[in-house]
Amino acid sequence: MNDNTHRPQAISLANVRISEGFWGERQAVNRDRTIPAIYDQLVRSGRIDGWDVTKQRERPKKRSVVDMFWDSDSGKWLEAVGYSLLTHPNSVLEKQADELIAQIQKAQQADGYLNSYFTMVEPENRWRNLRDWHEMYNAGHLMEAAVAYYQGTGKRTLLDVLSRYADHIDQRFGPREGQKRGYCGHPEVELALVKLYQTTGERRYLTLANYFINERGKQPNYFDIEARERGDDPADFWAQNYRYCQAHEPIRDQQTATGHAVRACYLYAGVADIALETDDQELLEVSRRLWDNLTQTQMYLTGGLGPAHSNEGFTFAYDLPNETAYAETCASIALVFWAHRMFHLDPDGRYIDVLERALYNGVLSGVSYEGAHFFYANPLTSYPNVNPYEHWSGITSERHYHREEWFNCPCCPPNLARLVASINGYFYSITADTVYIHLYNSNHAHFEVQETAIHLDQRTNYPWDGEIQFSLQLEQPTQFTLALRIPGWCRDYELQVNGTKISDAPIAGYVRLNRQWQNEDKVSLSLKMPVERMISHPQVRMDVGQVALQRGPIVYCLEESDNGSNLASVYLPQDAPLTASLDKELFGGVSVITGDALRIVPLQWKGELYQPQSVTQYTQSPLKFKAIPYYLWANRMPGEMRVWIQQR
Amino acid sequence: MNDNTHRPQAISLANVRISEGFWGERQAVNRDRTIPAIYDQLVRSGRIDGWDVTKQRERPKKRSVVDMFWDSDSGKWLEAVGYSLLTHPNSVLEKQADELIAQIQKAQQADGYLNSYFTMVEPENRWRNLRDWHEMYNAGHLMEAAVAYYQGTGKRTLLDVLSRYADHIDQRFGPREGQKRGYCGHPEVELALVKLYQTTGERRYLTLANYFINERGKQPNYFDIEARERGDDPADFWAQNYRYCQAHEPIRDQQTATGHAVRACYLYAGVADIALETDDQELLEVSRRLWDNLTQTQMYLTGGLGPAHSNEGFTFAYDLPNETAYAETCASIALVFWAHRMFHLDPDGRYIDVLERALYNGVLSGVSYEGAHFFYANPLTSYPNVNPYEHWSGITSERHYHREEWFNCPCCPPNLARLVASINGYFYSITADTVYIHLYNSNHAHFEVQETAIHLDQRTNYPWDGEIQFSLQLEQPTQFTLALRIPGWCRDYELQVNGTKISDAPIAGYVRLNRQWQNEDKVSLSLKMPVERMISHPQVRMDVGQVALQRGPIVYCLEESDNGSNLASVYLPQDAPLTASLDKELFGGVSVITGDALRIVPLQWKGELYQPQSVTQYTQSPLKFKAIPYYLWANRMPGEMRVWIQQR
Repeated sequence: MNDNTHRPQAISLANVRISEGFWGERQAVNRDRTIPAIYDQLVRSGRIDGWDVTKQRERPKKRSVVDMFWDSDSGKWLEAVGYSLLTHPNSVLEKQADELIAQIQKAQQADGYLNSYFTMVEPENRWRNLRDWHEMYNAGHLMEAAVAYYQGTGKRTLLDVLSRYADHIDQRFGPREGQKRGYCGHPEVELALVKLYQTTGERRYLTLANYFINERGKQPNYFDIEARERGDDPADFWAQNYRYCQAHEPIRDQQTATGHAVRACYLYAGVADIALETDDQELLEVSRRLWDNLTQTQMYLTGGLGPAHSNEGFTFAYDLPNETAYAETCASIALVFWAHRMFHLDPDGRYIDVLERALYNGVLSGVSYEGAHFFYANPLTSYPNVNPYEHWSGITSERHYHREEWFNCPCCPPNLARLVASINGYFYSITADTVYIHLYNSNHAHFEVQETAIHLDQRTNYPWDGEIQFSLQLEQPTQFTLALRIPGWCRDYELQVNGTKISDAPIAGYVRLNRQWQNEDKVSLSLKMPVERMISHPQVRMDVGQVALQRGPIVYCLEESDNGSNLASVYLPQDAPLTASLDKELFGGVSVITGDALRIVPLQWKGELYQPQSVTQYTQSPLKFKAIPYYLWANRMPGEMRVWIQQR
Repeated sequence: MNDNTHRPQAISLANVRISEGFWGERQAVNRDRTIPAIYDQLVRSGRIDGWDVTKQRERPKKRSVVDMFWDSDSGKWLEAVGYSLLTHPNSVLEKQADELIAQIQKAQQADGYLNSYFTMVEPENRWRNLRDWHEMYNAGHLMEAAVAYYQGTGKRTLLDVLSRYADHIDQRFGPREGQKRGYCGHPEVELALVKLYQTTGERRYLTLANYFINERGKQPNYFDIEARERGDDPADFWAQNYRYCQAHEPIRDQQTATGHAVRACYLYAGVADIALETDDQELLEVSRRLWDNLTQTQMYLTGGLGPAHSNEGFTFAYDLPNETAYAETCASIALVFWAHRMFHLDPDGRYIDVLERALYNGVLSGVSYEGAHFFYANPLTSYPNVNPYEHWSGITSERHYHREEWFNCPCCPPNLARLVASINGYFYSITADTVYIHLYNSNHAHFEVQETAIHLDQRTNYPWDGEIQFSLQLEQPTQFTLALRIPGWCRDYELQVNGTKISDAPIAGYVRLNRQWQNEDKVSLSLKMPVERMISHPQVRMDVGQVALQRGPIVYCLEESDNGSNLASVYLPQDAPLTASLDKELFGGVSVITGDALRIVPLQWKGELYQPQSVTQYTQSPLKFKAIPYYLWANRMPGEMRVWIQQR
């Protein structure tokens, strides 16, 4: 039933070398700092030893679901290592990974079951609470790790272990007599099973993923059934509603992105996988519907998702508070995963526009410039004492919100590491006759079209400017389409092939150059990148009267370091010229935006909180402001930050 | 040690008759609707039967601290009835109250202990958790009820019961050998013991209140001690920090208003009582310091307090979010209590300015115009799906935020009822030679100065206009000072005595007319009441660029009923004339503010959430806006509401 030969497929990260430029630097930091720092934290927090069946794993003093998903953290770290080793061999990392894999292998039970917590701490509770206890979520991350580590090193140990575990799950769960009709409260295993299927060729894994996707939310709800089996009242579910885990109704009936944002996007990514692998038109429509709802009503300018701490997720359309934005790093990462699949399901640049928005803003803000500190929540305004990650607790932080080395629930750091390590895999896609170029960064790619080996070299200082040079090396002249993405943010561009201007308009986001390509052909693309004042949909009540600066894919912010405090009082005059320039001193050289703003502050306060405006005089002090890329905020002196700026 | 003869004392509500005007109407609604409606809810929720020792009170399925403070709800209702009977005899109410008091009397234990929950449900847990379980808080409300009911009816039953209970508490708690050095996690008993002392003359009650005030927050912290005695780890305190209950340090060391807002203001009211009764200069300074901190950095324009749901309380200076403002009705009521005491401790109109602000705005908004629906949280902006009372739950309300008939924790409705029923007691204060006039509303007061009976008649349509006429009836000419409050909001006024203009400037908020007053003397005061555009302190980042309309003591708001939806897009031009007029059709006749505003909305949205401003056109549609008093919002069609309005 599956004929996907017409569909684009991502060119593997094995075929794309990034050694310089923006992503070259980010990947180097990821390899040299982030991945080792996470390993240290895995060791320190007991997560590595937690796999060692010869060691006693202590029962936590207080039972916390966080202890139940340690395996996913190791899994994501192993996945990052797998990708990294593919392009950058590193004997230390490989040894650490191999040792960990050996422990994981030993922890696998005779029946294939594999979970450090439910083997060593609560063996009696295996598979008793799919809703809350993350067993399949852990399984999914280990499957993704197994696939990546196999791709990166050719070593099959983990892949075989996880295949056995997948077999175990496949026996336990499904529609057949004697099987449980369950699925995981935290989606993840669905997309992982598709990867496992794609890597091993075992079709049962695809069938199982398809089952999980379609069974979810059906009545009677499995989470009700298993709650009663435990002797619990389903009404006592702490999150109060299965919308939290997107299990309130079958996916085919769902109209809006809802609940926990990471769960939502992992699920939707799995839905897209199944739609693609099974050519399911209805699931394609569901995917488009949820995509439009999410990106057109529930997404921050940064690609952040999920404004609320309470459910780590969505609230309602246009509800996008800035200061208390939860916008979990993992949610933006999950959006990247989903967007990538959406393109392959429904080839259109609009998915990559969102992918790029999330990647350069809400994802990258999750890690410090030096690589070993992380944000969990990614607010768009930061003010002293406001901590969007903890503001529920009643104790506001006395300090400025800042990146942490680790978290009690450390899902974000290794998630970032695996995405940055695999970013090469997001650059290109290919069909029988078309090569899509999605992202821009200096790199060298090689692939085959019509059995001709082709090398494509891309040179650019993107995202700091929009000048991009391509050169092709071909064994022989070959007819195919080079499809260059014209980003949604770009309203003017120039394109040349071998010095000849091309005026083709983009179709579905890509200018498609179909020709007999010759060796040494050159393409140059110049994306005009003016500073834009972005405004929000008028129903985003928090952003009324304010603008955000964006240039290319980069969203900017004001920081106290450059602009002083009380940023709420800074106004951008409607007609103030805005200048983008490369600041070579800043973070290795990044574009900044400068201009003339005003700081408008009432005078003559005598201690009252309120006074009549008629007795008030204002100062209007000119401010030479400087805006820096949002993703780099909180890397210097602690202080206020603001993306949306008052305008008058 | 106590010489308070020089200090003003409130003229008892027994001596002030309000039969018409603003408060005449509010008190009638309170008597006819609110107090009976609350009684019905007390019955329906089991709180009346909960006192009946012959009935089995079921142990709640889930233990909740809310079940532990039922007694306070009956107490506040009885207190309201007591005040109401004083001026308006009502045999139905009195019978209900007498029957309830009879049950309460029967519920008192042989040792004087009195608590329905810890007698009938968890007798084993009496006095085991002062931090959380509200026993003394309940006691305090019953003491206040006992005093009010005695004042209102002359019946001593409840007063005697509560005196016995106070004796019990006095034996159990204190500094002496064998006593527990405890105090209540929720302050209230302190101010109530002072009332009980003032009514019974029993000095031990004052001493005990003084002890509670001064012991609070000392090291070793009693809450730590009792937690360990229960076998609990003090670190497991759910609120995480004793700032929540103002027990983190001794009151004399406290610099800022902190924690749960109602607890804070009840405590501070008790501190003021003790400072006054014991002439404690240091406690006076503490009171002034906390007052200034609270009113100058942590109070909404409406007199609302406590922006955060998480602790039902304070966060940090200038943190006053509007949409999620918790601003519990009880907190504004508590502020009124504290302000009233502060005036008597430190006679200055600035305290009454705050009292008046809270009263006409953040307090009255807590009850519907018809009197039987209540707000717990009082936000300054309301938007569909945003429920400041529940926004922590992860489930946003699908509806507009609206007043409820009752709450799981119904502290606010009876608190409102007792304040409105006793508002006459807030109008005047008296010393040996001065009569202070604090509040303006038609009323008739009688009192004695220098042993001369004086009747003071006040006629006005305040707060809808500022024209106030006084006439005096005296048995004989008498020399004294009539001190008329010039409200802080008033920048221009005219004052005449018997038609002769007086140009004395106010001192500490009062124009002091010292003379030999004659029978039939007339005073007329004209407080100019223009519409003011109020602005917030520049550090209130949420209100930057916005104004709120205020006229006299009344804060105004825009409602969707009058102005359509999407109020965030409404701009008030800087120079737009604003007109106040009496709308006789609206809520029995209230002043409204009208004028010309603009609704500025970007056009050409094609589904995106964000677009460049440079490609955007705006509509600027003129809007004849109408603002109504804030306290009356949500009494008509459900919809948006906004106090702070964009200005350009």
